[in-house]
Amino acid sequence: MASLIKDLSKLCVHTQTTKSWGIEACVKNYSEVGIHGITIWRNVLENKNLTEVKALLDDHGMEVVSLCRGGFFPSVDASKRKSAIEDNLWAIVQAQAVGAPLIVMVCGADVDQSLEKSREQIAEGIIRILPAAQSAGVKLAIEPLHPMYAGDRSAINTLKQANDMAEMINSEWVGVAVDVYHLWWDGTLKSEIKRCGDQNHLFAFHVCDWNVPTTDFLNDRGLMGDGCINIPEIRGWVEDAGFNGFNEVEIFSDKYWSTDQYTYLEKIKQAYITKT
Amino acid sequence: MASLIKDLSKLCVHTQTTKSWGIEACVKNYSEVGIHGITIWRNVLENKNLTEVKALLDDHGMEVVSLCRGGFFPSVDASKRKSAIEDNLWAIVQAQAVGAPLIVMVCGADVDQSLEKSREQIAEGIIRILPAAQSAGVKLAIEPLHPMYAGDRSAINTLKQANDMAEMINSEWVGVAVDVYHLWWDGTLKSEIKRCGDQNHLFAFHVCDWNVPTTDFLNDRGLMGDGCINIPEIRGWVEDAGFNGFNEVEIFSDKYWSTDQYTYLEKIKQAYITKT
Repeated sequence: MASLIKDLSKLCVHTQTTKSWGIEACVKNYSEVGIHGITIWRNVLENKNLTEVKALLDDHGMEVVSLCRGGFFPSVDASKRKSAIEDNLWAIVQAQAVGAPLIVMVCGADVDQSLEKSREQIAEGIIRILPAAQSAGVKLAIEPLHPMYAGDRSAINTLKQANDMAEMINSEWVGVAVDVYHLWWDGTLKSEIKRCGDQNHLFAFHVCDWNVPTTDFLNDRGLMGDGCINIPEIRGWVEDAGFNGFNEVEIFSDKYWSTDQYTYLEKIKQAYITKT
Repeated sequence: MASLIKDLSKLCVHTQTTKSWGIEACVKNYSEVGIHGITIWRNVLENKNLTEVKALLDDHGMEVVSLCRGGFFPSVDASKRKSAIEDNLWAIVQAQAVGAPLIVMVCGADVDQSLEKSREQIAEGIIRILPAAQSAGVKLAIEPLHPMYAGDRSAINTLKQANDMAEMINSEWVGVAVDVYHLWWDGTLKSEIKRCGDQNHLFAFHVCDWNVPTTDFLNDRGLMGDGCINIPEIRGWVEDAGFNGFNEVEIFSDKYWSTDQYTYLEKIKQAYITKT
């Protein structure tokens, strides 16, 4: 059973959830309404002085939960694989600079090679950046993505595959991010969450909802309660597996992005208390 | 390894693939270009005399591979579950009348209950209609659907789940339809296909392709070769598992539906020989 959500102390919002806001607006507006967990998407750090961003976060009492996103390792092109490694090393520098203890990795896939080959390259990529992550004190979370993204976004599409890879790499710095949107349909989810927790690999928990019908492959995620995912049940499994970190709200939604973002943030708070 | 495709003798086209054609046009146009396998969608039988349809099929040397589709068993509403049973019993009558040895079942899901509950109701539904299917000489194929359809179309989303259910029901009249579109991403696909064949449950094989990017949840399937699925590899697994039936082309595509359907049929034949 999930614990009762009584306050906002474990609520984290992804900057991409309020896409039109830059990092300053996110920090100011989240903290003003009592939200002190933030996951920073890298687009809001472009052309920013990271020391100043860190000061801004500290001044507003924000806890950085993670940096989104690393990964995208696979390619048939060796030079692209090399660029991906460099980009992930830069993400580690960014994460350390803004005080993010974790990078969430969307692992990638290349449509021109098999999923097995892409998974090999994902493992190679993670192993390559692991020393830098460890020395920066930044953990890495493999995020399995919904099978509808297997073509070009991630060759890791089930929690089992993410668990398999984390266990194969076998480092306390490499774990898994569980996102209900990607995994809710999987009949093995409960047992794989337990396995993930038992191995101390459960690093992050992301929430939103699956709209029925869903009309867009990327930007039609629902606010908690809008759709068909039993979020409290899955949160219960995650907590039973030993997770006590933030519940991260990660919603990509053309519908909500087109509304007033202050009102939307209030809706997120309410849905977090009542539907998560 | 898949066998080499040398001719059209194992090619079957679903009537829905050429959506604008009625049953008469499908039979006439398929047979004229050397395609003699047909899977009949029930919409083309509406208001038709089934004896006349059977005669039309026979006159053109058509082999009916299956009837699409039964299923849609789950509902929170008992009267809807009852209606679904009645509809499936009618599908069995239709299948027998047109000479279809198999009904493909899109099993269904109800957004207002858990996937587990929907799966229970699917099994109950199949068991309810099984005596009628058996006495009509019509087999039933459970078709697992892609996880992106778990919200409202099917609570059976992996071949493992379909195999589990077929083995639980344990009848020579109930098996599985393998569709590459729904299953290609699954890391356990090869072993589950072998399991399916070993249990004599591999009743049907459907092909099309996964477009990258995919732009519509229902009607953006690719022609074989358009997308990222390694169809020959999967066909090889299916054949290694003992399947020697038709390769059924089932493509829902606004793009292809908007083109000349005679030209499209030629493209299907070519893609069948070279990319399947």
